[in-house]
Amino acid sequence: MEIFKFMVPEIIFGRGTLKLVGESAKRLGATRIFLVSDEGVLSAGWVDEAVKHLKDIGLEYQVWTEPTENPKDFEIDHGKELYLETGYDAVVGLGGGSAIDAAKAVAILATNGGKIHDYVGVDKIEKPLPPLICVATTAGAAAEVTQFAIIVDSHRKVKMTIGSKSLVPDIAIVDPILLSTKDARLTANTGIDALTHAIEAYVSVAATPVTDVNALKAIGIISTALRASVASRTNIKAKTEMAMASLLAGVAMSNAILGAVHAMAHPLGGLLNLPHGEVNSILLPHVMRYNLIACMDRYADIARALGEKIDGMSTREAAERAVQAVEQLCQDIGAKRRLSEIGLQEEYIPELSKAAAEDVCLITNPRDASVDDIAAIYRAAL
Amino acid sequence: MEIFKFMVPEIIFGRGTLKLVGESAKRLGATRIFLVSDEGVLSAGWVDEAVKHLKDIGLEYQVWTEPTENPKDFEIDHGKELYLETGYDAVVGLGGGSAIDAAKAVAILATNGGKIHDYVGVDKIEKPLPPLICVATTAGAAAEVTQFAIIVDSHRKVKMTIGSKSLVPDIAIVDPILLSTKDARLTANTGIDALTHAIEAYVSVAATPVTDVNALKAIGIISTALRASVASRTNIKAKTEMAMASLLAGVAMSNAILGAVHAMAHPLGGLLNLPHGEVNSILLPHVMRYNLIACMDRYADIARALGEKIDGMSTREAAERAVQAVEQLCQDIGAKRRLSEIGLQEEYIPELSKAAAEDVCLITNPRDASVDDIAAIYRAAL
Repeated sequence: MEIFKFMVPEIIFGRGTLKLVGESAKRLGATRIFLVSDEGVLSAGWVDEAVKHLKDIGLEYQVWTEPTENPKDFEIDHGKELYLETGYDAVVGLGGGSAIDAAKAVAILATNGGKIHDYVGVDKIEKPLPPLICVATTAGAAAEVTQFAIIVDSHRKVKMTIGSKSLVPDIAIVDPILLSTKDARLTANTGIDALTHAIEAYVSVAATPVTDVNALKAIGIISTALRASVASRTNIKAKTEMAMASLLAGVAMSNAILGAVHAMAHPLGGLLNLPHGEVNSILLPHVMRYNLIACMDRYADIARALGEKIDGMSTREAAERAVQAVEQLCQDIGAKRRLSEIGLQEEYIPELSKAAAEDVCLITNPRDASVDDIAAIYRAAL
Repeated sequence: MEIFKFMVPEIIFGRGTLKLVGESAKRLGATRIFLVSDEGVLSAGWVDEAVKHLKDIGLEYQVWTEPTENPKDFEIDHGKELYLETGYDAVVGLGGGSAIDAAKAVAILATNGGKIHDYVGVDKIEKPLPPLICVATTAGAAAEVTQFAIIVDSHRKVKMTIGSKSLVPDIAIVDPILLSTKDARLTANTGIDALTHAIEAYVSVAATPVTDVNALKAIGIISTALRASVASRTNIKAKTEMAMASLLAGVAMSNAILGAVHAMAHPLGGLLNLPHGEVNSILLPHVMRYNLIACMDRYADIARALGEKIDGMSTREAAERAVQAVEQLCQDIGAKRRLSEIGLQEEYIPELSKAAAEDVCLITNPRDASVDDIAAIYRAAL
């Protein structure tokens, strides 16, 4: 930890805070809102609810729910056209990672022009974005607090990572009530995504005390609340805890960045159009085992945060206990165990490994990983 | 914790980051900088250093070092005149709490007009401030991250608290190198101010998991680093740790607000023009003892964070141990022990107690406190 930067949006957290979306947009000077969401959130009723709060406060709006899971470049092009055609002056993203990443991508093109491919990498965005308010409907992606957007290159079938302080929304709204319409599988997948964020941020080479405290607290909350949240759609206490954990993990990972799990999940998710959290839940224990020798003491901290009793153990044993605790958690919530179950075939591994080795998330992974190392991890998880 | 908001500036932390002040201002669109500092910081050489970095990047500037410890309303009036006379378009605050609070106050008047008294209270600022970059030169006040400014009403001799999201600077720069010119007494006073922020934020009725993690980490760092930082001007490791602790405590208290120590320190500091941290170090153990029954479990957490061995103790005993540990720390760093040593006379107590009972910081104190309760605490500390 020598020099670091730390940035989070203004955060509004709590049950019922979706109602503040209109007021928040108006405070930023918005008059005409481009509301980006998806079909799932629409059918759950949250788009109508958000629209009501925009109307109540006298804002004009258009709802755009075209983005799909793992939003595609051509969807973003279309969103940009709609935005510019009608002279909107602010973007609201309402959804999980996919809808919010699409909202961010449209916001980039709205003021910077061009194609989304032009902004792939770090700090390529030159002009300020329109006011951007993001409302989370899942407890996992945390795109509402991060400086990242992930968009699929539909031609090459890879996920493109865009990183820029400009992508930190102006205001993030986290309303746990919105989690009550998610089924157990989505709750499990998004929850493991949050856990992966926290663990990768905590062992990241860019971790700082400011990110560590958020990451460890997130791990602690997830270790108990995720099981309960998966178990019951109406357990609002567990939903609230998971919303908090996702937020804390997001604050940590937006500033400490990620590691090999995400580097490996990006090409795989892009190739097979898989739910991001599902890929993470399979890869996480394997990557933890690979990374273990890089920072055993940090893994021991993770074990303790996960509620493991490690007093009297060696650091090596305690670190190993962290991996086992993550495996047990994944098993308890019914996560898939093998990449072959979700459609990966051996023949894709060389190509995926090359792509993962070039992913920006690998830079902050605590252990160096060659293309061969990565291929070995994919194979172990196959 | 039902609904809460959380806001921090963009933070740049690390040794040598003062050099980023010009680049940061330019990124916010600044061309002509009004640099607010004080005579102490000027004579330590940091104003010249900052100016160099403004010049290097082609920014025009004026240096204003009139603000004194506990900046006064008439100084702010003067600063406003200077700012408006010459058409500046951004404010840089460089100092401890006094210079940065003065910078914030000038920034308020620059775009909102009127007198600083018009903005006392919560959310009274209507128009956006000019770009505001704050650079900390002490590890304690944390005004560079908070949503507060404290200005003395020179007529009534009281401190006025202004609270508004608009006062969160756009960019906060925390450069531990700047702490190396502070003497032991200032290091001790500002360090205890940081500890008070963390403890009051942790037991605040507005505390949330997001503020808790920052507060506890700050307490843990201060419990070891403050003694070492007071002991040696050249211990840059300890300075860096204290800069981090001050930052974490500031993030916590800006969002969880404070308690009775600050409510009582404000009128006392205003009346006798005393160093804020010195007043805090005397009041803190007394207020902790008073508050203890409101949240013994939180005090037990504080004891553990302070490094106390509390295993096997009752919660009551562990909570009491937190108070003892704070007293020991204050004694180790040579803090004054009694308010009579710093000029308080019994006759002022009724008036001070009435003012403290009306201070906005009392609202989030965990235990109700009447004017008589407050007077009893002042008397216990006399």
